[in-house]
Amino acid sequence: MAEPFAQPLDGEPAARVLVAGASGFTGALAAQIVWCHPRLELVAATSRSDAGKTLEELYPRYRVPLELTELDLDELERVDAAIVAYPHGASAPTVAALRGLGVLVVDLSADFRLRDLPTYERWYGEHGAPELLEGAVYGLTELYREQLREAELVATPGCYPTAAVLALAPLAEKGLVSEAFVSAMQGTSGYGRSSDDLVHFSAMTENAFPYKTEGHRHRPEIEQELAALGSPAPVTFVPHLVPLDQGELATCIAQLSEPLSREEVQALYRERYAGEPFVRVLDGPPNLRAVRETNECHVYVTVEERGRVLAFSALDNIWKGESGQRVQNLNLMLGLDETEGLL
Amino acid sequence: MAEPFAQPLDGEPAARVLVAGASGFTGALAAQIVWCHPRLELVAATSRSDAGKTLEELYPRYRVPLELTELDLDELERVDAAIVAYPHGASAPTVAALRGLGVLVVDLSADFRLRDLPTYERWYGEHGAPELLEGAVYGLTELYREQLREAELVATPGCYPTAAVLALAPLAEKGLVSEAFVSAMQGTSGYGRSSDDLVHFSAMTENAFPYKTEGHRHRPEIEQELAALGSPAPVTFVPHLVPLDQGELATCIAQLSEPLSREEVQALYRERYAGEPFVRVLDGPPNLRAVRETNECHVYVTVEERGRVLAFSALDNIWKGESGQRVQNLNLMLGLDETEGLL
Amino acid sequence: MAEPFAQPLDGEPAARVLVAGASGFTGALAAQIVWCHPRLELVAATSRSDAGKTLEELYPRYRVPLELTELDLDELERVDAAIVAYPHGASAPTVAALRGLGVLVVDLSADFRLRDLPTYERWYGEHGAPELLEGAVYGLTELYREQLREAELVATPGCYPTAAVLALAPLAEKGLVSEAFVSAMQGTSGYGRSSDDLVHFSAMTENAFPYKTEGHRHRPEIEQELAALGSPAPVTFVPHLVPLDQGELATCIAQLSEPLSREEVQALYRERYAGEPFVRVLDGPPNLRAVRETNECHVYVTVEERGRVLAFSALDNIWKGESGQRVQNLNLMLGLDETEGLL
Amino acid sequence: MAEPFAQPLDGEPAARVLVAGASGFTGALAAQIVWCHPRLELVAATSRSDAGKTLEELYPRYRVPLELTELDLDELERVDAAIVAYPHGASAPTVAALRGLGVLVVDLSADFRLRDLPTYERWYGEHGAPELLEGAVYGLTELYREQLREAELVATPGCYPTAAVLALAPLAEKGLVSEAFVSAMQGTSGYGRSSDDLVHFSAMTENAFPYKTEGHRHRPEIEQELAALGSPAPVTFVPHLVPLDQGELATCIAQLSEPLSREEVQALYRERYAGEPFVRVLDGPPNLRAVRETNECHVYVTVEERGRVLAFSALDNIWKGESGQRVQNLNLMLGLDETEGLL
Repeated sequence: MAEPFAQPLDGEPAARVLVAGASGFTGALAAQIVWCHPRLELVAATSRSDAGKTLEELYPRYRVPLELTELDLDELERVDAAIVAYPHGASAPTVAALRGLGVLVVDLSADFRLRDLPTYERWYGEHGAPELLEGAVYGLTELYREQLREAELVATPGCYPTAAVLALAPLAEKGLVSEAFVSAMQGTSGYGRSSDDLVHFSAMTENAFPYKTEGHRHRPEIEQELAALGSPAPVTFVPHLVPLDQGELATCIAQLSEPLSREEVQALYRERYAGEPFVRVLDGPPNLRAVRETNECHVYVTVEERGRVLAFSALDNIWKGESGQRVQNLNLMLGLDETEGLL
Repeated sequence: MAEPFAQPLDGEPAARVLVAGASGFTGALAAQIVWCHPRLELVAATSRSDAGKTLEELYPRYRVPLELTELDLDELERVDAAIVAYPHGASAPTVAALRGLGVLVVDLSADFRLRDLPTYERWYGEHGAPELLEGAVYGLTELYREQLREAELVATPGCYPTAAVLALAPLAEKGLVSEAFVSAMQGTSGYGRSSDDLVHFSAMTENAFPYKTEGHRHRPEIEQELAALGSPAPVTFVPHLVPLDQGELATCIAQLSEPLSREEVQALYRERYAGEPFVRVLDGPPNLRAVRETNECHVYVTVEERGRVLAFSALDNIWKGESGQRVQNLNLMLGLDETEGLL
Repeated sequence: MAEPFAQPLDGEPAARVLVAGASGFTGALAAQIVWCHPRLELVAATSRSDAGKTLEELYPRYRVPLELTELDLDELERVDAAIVAYPHGASAPTVAALRGLGVLVVDLSADFRLRDLPTYERWYGEHGAPELLEGAVYGLTELYREQLREAELVATPGCYPTAAVLALAPLAEKGLVSEAFVSAMQGTSGYGRSSDDLVHFSAMTENAFPYKTEGHRHRPEIEQELAALGSPAPVTFVPHLVPLDQGELATCIAQLSEPLSREEVQALYRERYAGEPFVRVLDGPPNLRAVRETNECHVYVTVEERGRVLAFSALDNIWKGESGQRVQNLNLMLGLDETEGLL
Repeated sequence: MAEPFAQPLDGEPAARVLVAGASGFTGALAAQIVWCHPRLELVAATSRSDAGKTLEELYPRYRVPLELTELDLDELERVDAAIVAYPHGASAPTVAALRGLGVLVVDLSADFRLRDLPTYERWYGEHGAPELLEGAVYGLTELYREQLREAELVATPGCYPTAAVLALAPLAEKGLVSEAFVSAMQGTSGYGRSSDDLVHFSAMTENAFPYKTEGHRHRPEIEQELAALGSPAPVTFVPHLVPLDQGELATCIAQLSEPLSREEVQALYRERYAGEPFVRVLDGPPNLRAVRETNECHVYVTVEERGRVLAFSALDNIWKGESGQRVQNLNLMLGLDETEGLL
């Protein structure tokens, strides 16, 4: 008889893993992925608000019978690595404490994404552990793979930056992007579990809207990464909420510093992403159903009639956009195959 | 130029109306219907939690620019009638106070629906104004039209009882129903505005489930009304939540005390509902889109292969199931045409 | 008793109206609006594919008991005006025949939208009645109101051009737009009734995607109108399909030829649209639920951090985007109040 | 680097499998499950209407790069087993031909479900291979596991009978069910890929309705199985379509021939399904999201206030309701672990 509720460990685990903040949408998925991972052991999943419940009770489709506990660093069993899914600002102190115990950390929050402290402070307020900023690696796997293998603290990119930067990276790396416009949409899982009038089913069904139109925190993050790749371009970013659960689509319009033909641009993308296990370059526009519940990012690039580049990327915002990518990075940090537990 | 934000009053109003508890789904719709009603003037819409906001801010599709205020009975301007949309238990004291001021009251809560006090207490706890029970009229318009014309306090039926009783009334009135099974479904507006994990878009999309399977308060209410019509039959009632906003479908299976043919049953329904402005007897199964945002109830009856009667009714749970029916009743109480402001 | 199925004519009709092609989504809505219009009489609704059915059978939420017939111009009763909802290319001959009979025509197709014949031929093929092109008026009411009062043939704009041009018109009229990027989304009613794998509920739920990424016919139409207003700017246009029924959102990013502050831009929009019955300038981003089943277009404009103008518009693609606007124009052509039958 | 598009075969395949009729919803899923199965090799997936396309093109979320071909039994490579997903009536001749070649067959259609030929003929018309009826095994795994191990031709049950019979089997086996009422709902994948106005996204969103209210073919199938288990009870069956893709919920109300307490009934269910890998007895009502994209059936049973048994089951109609169960049975026929390729 099958035992769907035992962790399917394949021999001795490569690491004992803690998921801190496991009751939200992305923390819960992180716990689920670790639970089903053949080389990782989920030793604890913690939550202040839902301690005492199992993840199964909160999310029936996740089969993690482990009971959520409150995080107590003094009582913590031996842990090799932690995925921390705390809100921005609240994350830094816990991350610092875990690092102090020698635990490898993959952090979900924005606390270690922006390398420039003043930029961080402008968007998020005071930083709780600025001394850790320098050592943090930005966890967009396809761009920082080698650094991630050595990393001890990884900042998971925002879901929009993951989508937008993967859509534009092949051009940005060549210094070709002179300006970019990103119009993106995501489902309500991106809004978080917080129960709010806006995401009540009765409010979202048959609805859609742009939000944070005067400025979104992910804009400076996208600009930081395009600049790091070689294209310090100004970015206009407009996010939208649409009536679906999981999925994120970035529609990017780029002005190039020198004209390229459609064939040249498409060849550049195929070449750049040829070896990537989770990025697939398509022959036509991507769609969200094809990536749902996967760690894949589907990319399509073309040049439209007026000579501008259109670059699209589709991913599941809580998989490649959040928790899938976290485990992808954790695999690298632990010397495992990057795809383990994810395909 | 059009002035969409003025109340479209047709001369002197027939009544000045208060909507108390206007920030929830059904209270807001009541305010919207009264606002657009050619003979009623909306003098105040009150809400404890959202005082200071306009209804438009809470529900962009409702065009009521009036600012929500806190209810203060001492400061109340002259009011002829009130629609009270308070939770069960909380409603009775306010209803009693309004009645004390001579105000006609249409109450949304369950407080005056069950004529038997012990039954009320079993399901809802202590009653806040038992002295008013006897004078209250049950507001299922198609059954109590004459009493409603004279009523001063009307209890709006639950949405499920409205659907189930309209589906079974033509048989129940003849004393024909010996037992009944009601399997019903409704959209998330029936769950209320209360922001709860369950009705987060991410939880409800692609989901559906039965609830309150061990007993739902609407069961005794359905039995009360079938008995009042002449069929004191035991009822099994199972409600389900489905992923849509507004809509309610009751699928009723009835055992008859004497067999009737399909033709006889269908003729009975056509005859019974022939003069009803809001009940439409169909030639085939009803659907929810046809009644959405209307005060109509669509009914279909047939006899299935094993000889049981199948009776279906479809309505919009916040219109005919709640606020549309309230205004239908208020029209009667005020001597207006029952359909005014509703078609 | 109410008679929901009689046309609510207010005295003698101002015109007898034919709706040709009434079985598709927008033709059916046109028939429904005319049926409920207090000054118009719906004399016939025609359909080749669904002749013999009533509109109610096809679309239960529309209450038009009229039976669909095949169009026979020889047998046609006296008709003053016609709304023609035929596919592109198929429309021109019927329009020409109706004009030959002296009938005022509002045409849904693209056949009379593009004033430049070569541009038409590039996108749609041979033109069926090029001699009528010059006399046709482009039916974006807010831009061509005076010409529409005198028009005998009106081309209803595409739904995307309606949204995009209304979003940009106040700037375009001042010659300020030097380039524009339009990322737009619409629901599945915009895809038409054609039953296709793509719009099967099982394919669209939890899905979204861009389409026609190499070039969409509405791009030259948007450019034509911006140029006509005074801003001959190149436009990049990307449409998306999202999982909802009725609704269209245009997110426009404009580069201005001279910089304007957020306050200046917002003042410009308020002033421009101050007297418009169906355009509402909002204080924040629009949403689709607020305009669903209305003829309104909600507009919001701002300047984002990088200095570009963001202009948003939301409308119901089959109302203001198609059939609502058609009746708005027909009202003008007939000398009626523009808003009749539409609020 | 990962190779997501190679079949993940674990050594020599246990069987070479053909999927005939792979372009519909359930045939495509069967091909996908076989493709990913560690012990089965998918040698061909056939389709008349979509030959030449890959399954990936038709269903982007399925990763089967194999090109669909037309079935040609003369050209067929060696095949050990076939899953046939043809319409009722069309299936029997192909099944007969494959059996003639010695191929093990799992048939999706209704052609071999009803053991009584006159009943088959009443509901489906003439039978194409009545001589095979007697040898066919009804593939409700939990009831016929031992026969399935020896079977050469298996009839996959209808999705509704799978749900309803699993919900009632523990009582039916004891001869306790004297009558039953089944009110069930399913998503649009159950309606099939056939593009029809009814399942256009614009028609189904915010809609729900009962169908085939005068008699559905699954009713005699449910009665056949309850009788085979020991409870020859008359069944009333009412199916509904609800706005979701995959999922099926059966709400069963049973009259017992002798009264049982809630505790007795619940104990009976736990005991009956204790060893079942894919049936999970819950402590409360099931929901569809918990079983989506799984082969599980979740069951809950209780006794309601009026003494009737309520038995609920939830499953994914194209997994446990169709193609998951087919592979579950194929595993048994081939002597494999029943759960292989399914968890």
